[in-house]
Amino acid sequence: MPSLIRDRATSTPAMLAVFGDDALLRAALTFEAMLARAQGQVGLIPVSAAEAIAAACVELPDIEILADEAAHAGTLAIPLVAMIRERINDPEITRHVHRGATSQDLADTALMLQAKAGAALVVEETLRLADALAALAERHAATPMLGRTLLQGALPITFGLKVAGWLQGVDGALARFRRETAAIQLQLGGATGSLADLDGQARAVTERLAALLDLPAAETPWHSRREGLAGLASSLAILTGAIGKIAGDIALMAQNEVAEAFEPRVAGRGGSSAMAHKRNPTGCQIALTAATRAPHLAATIVAALPQQHERGLGGWQAEAPVLAELFQLTHGALAAMAPVIEGLEVDIDRMARNLAAADVGTDTGESEALVAKTLSARALADHRKDR
Amino acid sequence: MPSLIRDRATSTPAMLAVFGDDALLRAALTFEAMLARAQGQVGLIPVSAAEAIAAACVELPDIEILADEAAHAGTLAIPLVAMIRERINDPEITRHVHRGATSQDLADTALMLQAKAGAALVVEETLRLADALAALAERHAATPMLGRTLLQGALPITFGLKVAGWLQGVDGALARFRRETAAIQLQLGGATGSLADLDGQARAVTERLAALLDLPAAETPWHSRREGLAGLASSLAILTGAIGKIAGDIALMAQNEVAEAFEPRVAGRGGSSAMAHKRNPTGCQIALTAATRAPHLAATIVAALPQQHERGLGGWQAEAPVLAELFQLTHGALAAMAPVIEGLEVDIDRMARNLAAADVGTDTGESEALVAKTLSARALADHRKDR
Amino acid sequence: MPSLIRDRATSTPAMLAVFGDDALLRAALTFEAMLARAQGQVGLIPVSAAEAIAAACVELPDIEILADEAAHAGTLAIPLVAMIRERINDPEITRHVHRGATSQDLADTALMLQAKAGAALVVEETLRLADALAALAERHAATPMLGRTLLQGALPITFGLKVAGWLQGVDGALARFRRETAAIQLQLGGATGSLADLDGQARAVTERLAALLDLPAAETPWHSRREGLAGLASSLAILTGAIGKIAGDIALMAQNEVAEAFEPRVAGRGGSSAMAHKRNPTGCQIALTAATRAPHLAATIVAALPQQHERGLGGWQAEAPVLAELFQLTHGALAAMAPVIEGLEVDIDRMARNLAAADVGTDTGESEALVAKTLSARALADHRKDR
Amino acid sequence: MPSLIRDRATSTPAMLAVFGDDALLRAALTFEAMLARAQGQVGLIPVSAAEAIAAACVELPDIEILADEAAHAGTLAIPLVAMIRERINDPEITRHVHRGATSQDLADTALMLQAKAGAALVVEETLRLADALAALAERHAATPMLGRTLLQGALPITFGLKVAGWLQGVDGALARFRRETAAIQLQLGGATGSLADLDGQARAVTERLAALLDLPAAETPWHSRREGLAGLASSLAILTGAIGKIAGDIALMAQNEVAEAFEPRVAGRGGSSAMAHKRNPTGCQIALTAATRAPHLAATIVAALPQQHERGLGGWQAEAPVLAELFQLTHGALAAMAPVIEGLEVDIDRMARNLAAADVGTDTGESEALVAKTLSARALADHRKDR
Repeated sequence: MPSLIRDRATSTPAMLAVFGDDALLRAALTFEAMLARAQGQVGLIPVSAAEAIAAACVELPDIEILADEAAHAGTLAIPLVAMIRERINDPEITRHVHRGATSQDLADTALMLQAKAGAALVVEETLRLADALAALAERHAATPMLGRTLLQGALPITFGLKVAGWLQGVDGALARFRRETAAIQLQLGGATGSLADLDGQARAVTERLAALLDLPAAETPWHSRREGLAGLASSLAILTGAIGKIAGDIALMAQNEVAEAFEPRVAGRGGSSAMAHKRNPTGCQIALTAATRAPHLAATIVAALPQQHERGLGGWQAEAPVLAELFQLTHGALAAMAPVIEGLEVDIDRMARNLAAADVGTDTGESEALVAKTLSARALADHRKDR
Repeated sequence: MPSLIRDRATSTPAMLAVFGDDALLRAALTFEAMLARAQGQVGLIPVSAAEAIAAACVELPDIEILADEAAHAGTLAIPLVAMIRERINDPEITRHVHRGATSQDLADTALMLQAKAGAALVVEETLRLADALAALAERHAATPMLGRTLLQGALPITFGLKVAGWLQGVDGALARFRRETAAIQLQLGGATGSLADLDGQARAVTERLAALLDLPAAETPWHSRREGLAGLASSLAILTGAIGKIAGDIALMAQNEVAEAFEPRVAGRGGSSAMAHKRNPTGCQIALTAATRAPHLAATIVAALPQQHERGLGGWQAEAPVLAELFQLTHGALAAMAPVIEGLEVDIDRMARNLAAADVGTDTGESEALVAKTLSARALADHRKDR
Repeated sequence: MPSLIRDRATSTPAMLAVFGDDALLRAALTFEAMLARAQGQVGLIPVSAAEAIAAACVELPDIEILADEAAHAGTLAIPLVAMIRERINDPEITRHVHRGATSQDLADTALMLQAKAGAALVVEETLRLADALAALAERHAATPMLGRTLLQGALPITFGLKVAGWLQGVDGALARFRRETAAIQLQLGGATGSLADLDGQARAVTERLAALLDLPAAETPWHSRREGLAGLASSLAILTGAIGKIAGDIALMAQNEVAEAFEPRVAGRGGSSAMAHKRNPTGCQIALTAATRAPHLAATIVAALPQQHERGLGGWQAEAPVLAELFQLTHGALAAMAPVIEGLEVDIDRMARNLAAADVGTDTGESEALVAKTLSARALADHRKDR
Repeated sequence: MPSLIRDRATSTPAMLAVFGDDALLRAALTFEAMLARAQGQVGLIPVSAAEAIAAACVELPDIEILADEAAHAGTLAIPLVAMIRERINDPEITRHVHRGATSQDLADTALMLQAKAGAALVVEETLRLADALAALAERHAATPMLGRTLLQGALPITFGLKVAGWLQGVDGALARFRRETAAIQLQLGGATGSLADLDGQARAVTERLAALLDLPAAETPWHSRREGLAGLASSLAILTGAIGKIAGDIALMAQNEVAEAFEPRVAGRGGSSAMAHKRNPTGCQIALTAATRAPHLAATIVAALPQQHERGLGGWQAEAPVLAELFQLTHGALAAMAPVIEGLEVDIDRMARNLAAADVGTDTGESEALVAKTLSARALADHRKDR
């Protein structure tokens, strides 16, 4: 009975679905089905057995029952593989189920299939946010406002310069995240990562399975070598931090006494249960909440790196729910802030008045040139690399 | 679509229910119902209106719809209060709904009602674990074994001394947790914590409401004063760490080459999907997973302490799901380890052989006396303080 | 070659001295000297030997040499005990040095002696801050200002109510810290915590040593039972968070466009290297920096709880520098904010204007009553418990 | 008075020097000297003034006095720039000191100069460790041992396969670290990052300064865009985790009852103050201590990402000491483990006996092939990319 209300407050239906039980079971069953099929294709097991196994992996089981059984067994693989075998109910075939695999192969590969789907959502929504930031930076490249340092009025900038900084933070974080998605790989190693029990056909099975699942094959099994996941988790937390930076600035600009920028008005959003006049920065709230939580989730996965021997105890078992939360929070923050930037209400008159009141002149330095430099570097990067 | 499978792997049905959507909505509706009733009792609103409001708070709404609406609004209170008003559909009465309260009053009080129920489960299961530890320490007060330091064989101890240390860690952590549950208090402050809009009857309303909800009244509203929650969260993480210490030691003792203690055999638990001979320490796995995650969850709440002004943005909104996870992980660890200790298989012959092999003599020093001291101090504490 | 410049930016000379090398060595040598003396007093070793050992513990060694030797050996005790033995240079006496003790006894007890001194500084400076807050709350109990929620103007409060909230946060955190200082205890357990090698006089030696060091004796050795330290560390982080809350609010109030409160002017403080007109909130900067770092330091110690067997590997060795930093950051934050509160410049006219501009009426609700309640509860607590 | 003893226990003299006060001041003074020289070269200030400024930046100031002054001012730049001006004592020249720069330009650039030196040490020592791992993996490619999962004996592997996994973890973490060192860039933005006050010559000054300091120029100032630093910090923590994984495994293998591998004997290292027979895994202890602390340090920098406006309050000020600690801990862990791997004592007979005792056959699967694949992929990578 996890809380949908609390999860929806921080994430999107799309990302919650990616890491929901249906998707998890679909991914786990797909692993078993494709493992059999790959082994059938290389002649390790009969093709007919492979197809029978695949057929037994189509229907999703009852989630509550399976959740109880998995909790009791200590791993999802045990009841799931038992269920597949029971559905097949032919000892000639059931002995080929899960061949050469271990419970962590199933758990890791299922997580990676979910992460792959999650990563696509993150990239798409980050590009949406970044494009909105680029448009905003261009529009306000020359809009003067008060620059603020240590929360005190300092010297003039343009609003475009501020937004260009937001954009670079997001673009930089996205580039890192994309690099780190290289960790999203097939896991297949067998009990101790030695790829035993595959009759010397480990390489062929691995390559076929990778192709069938559309996941890259890992150079070698990575059961207790988790730095890739730690890098992925960290990159999500950093991306969330880059979004939180934007949310924090906008919330500060939206203060009554500053009043320079506001989230767009959306019917039914940002109201107060006690004050009809309130217009709460709800998108910023979601992003800041995510930025508050994400660093600690990433740290969990980094801290779990010293996992014991060939497959550890308590480390990798902690990763899946934490990585899921990171994807959920990041996507929630992105989906909250993209429309905020797209529809941001900017009061350039108030910016001008606040600047004048600070009495620090009007020299915005190279602000415009820096905006232009940022945008042209970005256009060039887009040109060179297919987005 | 949060994942029941992943949540059940780390927690108990009982604690998941405490922090599930039904319980959350029940708590939130109870807050509104009792708020009205308290105001009726002190004469702030008509008793008939209070009863009409309470009647509109009985039936739970559709969770998926409400989750969407709350996510859109940015707070649960908005759609929930709207739903109550719609159910009543009489403007003479609906104007009394949620009077003097703000969305955070509802959110915090609902969380506290859940925390109170969660705390009772934690205390009960910790006492169960501690009692099992005390019995185990007593039984093996004089059982010699090799003491180990820096993961190297050192000098003899008794197994009872090791268990007495586990027990003291758990007892100490439980005492801290109980102290910190003092933070579980009613929240009622209104929009800015000034208790306005209650016609000067704030004190009476607060006291009645506290009595009706069976929660202590806070000295003053604590909307942005969260050190109590941070203490509570930290105490849960510390308790989980004390359990993780036990799990870590047992997992080390259960290694093939050490073979001094083992989790009890439970049908269908601790198996391997790849190796029939395996007997995995599944209880320890759950506890170690919890101990890996809990410190970072507590740190989230501590890090969120500097919340802005009267009610902050992004800080308190991050707390509820994190605190829920802490309760869930802690209870999962307790429920996993209590039966492990109750049924621990101890091989005293192997302990003796390992000790002899280390060739460090047989002097266990004051081990027995220290066990006795621990147990008698515990008995005394029990005697003086109702458990 | 640690950085004094960076340490001084975050802490006070007094607290840096408490955790400096001189203090560490003095504490470590005092442990060895008093251990010998205690053993002399109970007749375990000759009094003359005890005095010779104590005499060899007076002069501090060369720090750089000892730091190298300790790093090489993996523990401070090895070169320090060797140095004491070398100074004595009489085998009849040197065999009594460090008797019944292990390296962690020395390390833990030295840390506890430092923690005790550090705790006194923390308590003193927290009381100073709290007294300043109480005076400020009283002075402005009725000063109206705009209450702000989710960083938006909400409804009126009094400034005193805001300050009373700060005060309660600090008082609550101080109470927790004081409770957690109960963990500051003597460590004496010998190699495996069995108190072997003390000829059955462990209890007498422990009591004498505790008295000589003016540290409470632990019920039993706590080499791998660290929940007390985790509680102490958490309480420091929570106290720092309570201070950070104040700093955050003041920094927000000091923004040009809000301009309601300012740190006192101090010659040479808060300037800018680039802008003569700037008046940076330097005290708030120090406190917020501390509040940014402290939660992660506390989490380090909580995460290290599952330490192996009788004395672990890598866990307790991580605690001392982290605990030292926590004390340093907390005291730095306190010493920065106490004078800020004592000399806070409050612009009540601006508060009134900002409130009027928000157009939310003038009803401050029960603000004054809540301030009075806070202050009288505090006075009562002071009366009952010697400060 | 920071503690050299505690710092040396966790890091190397070389890395402590990189982040020591002398290096910090040298870096800060170099920034000011080269800033003047760059401005002289592009004609913004007289060359003679530039040289006079550079001359005033040669001698290091008294560290204790400067540390006090910087703590009082709230930033190092203020007293340092004042000192430079005082040394010059000619108003015609002093007005050119620090032109166009802000205190954070100096602080960030000095930190980056230190980070660059630190990164070189990290890369060098990681390559040393990785080379030792490659040699060890090759040597034991076919050495059979018991594979262990969930801390239980599982199926056979070769020791080479285990070491190959260690190697891949370290190599992967090193590759990430190298990518993230791209964040080590010059900071020059002036008060609000607008590059004002440089007479439109910002680009030329920046390029000259970057060349003189041998640091890459940033695309635009990054005062409050810190995702690069967060990535760098995370990569250090992940590298430390990859080292900690090795240390943890070796410590487990060195247990008396397992006895398969041991740290090399080094005179005076790994002893016990209480037990002459002990041989503590001191290198592993250092690495595990680092791996315990590093994730929380990285999380500090990730959590600080939402820094306010053009230059924030409390965020970037927290980064420098934390990043310094990360470099120090990582290098300490590397320097501890490289000789452990180089001199690791492996008992292949005991490995064989432990394997036989587990009674799980002798099929090491594709272990040898996986080792060969790892080593040839590594050789190829080395061939293609200059190390």
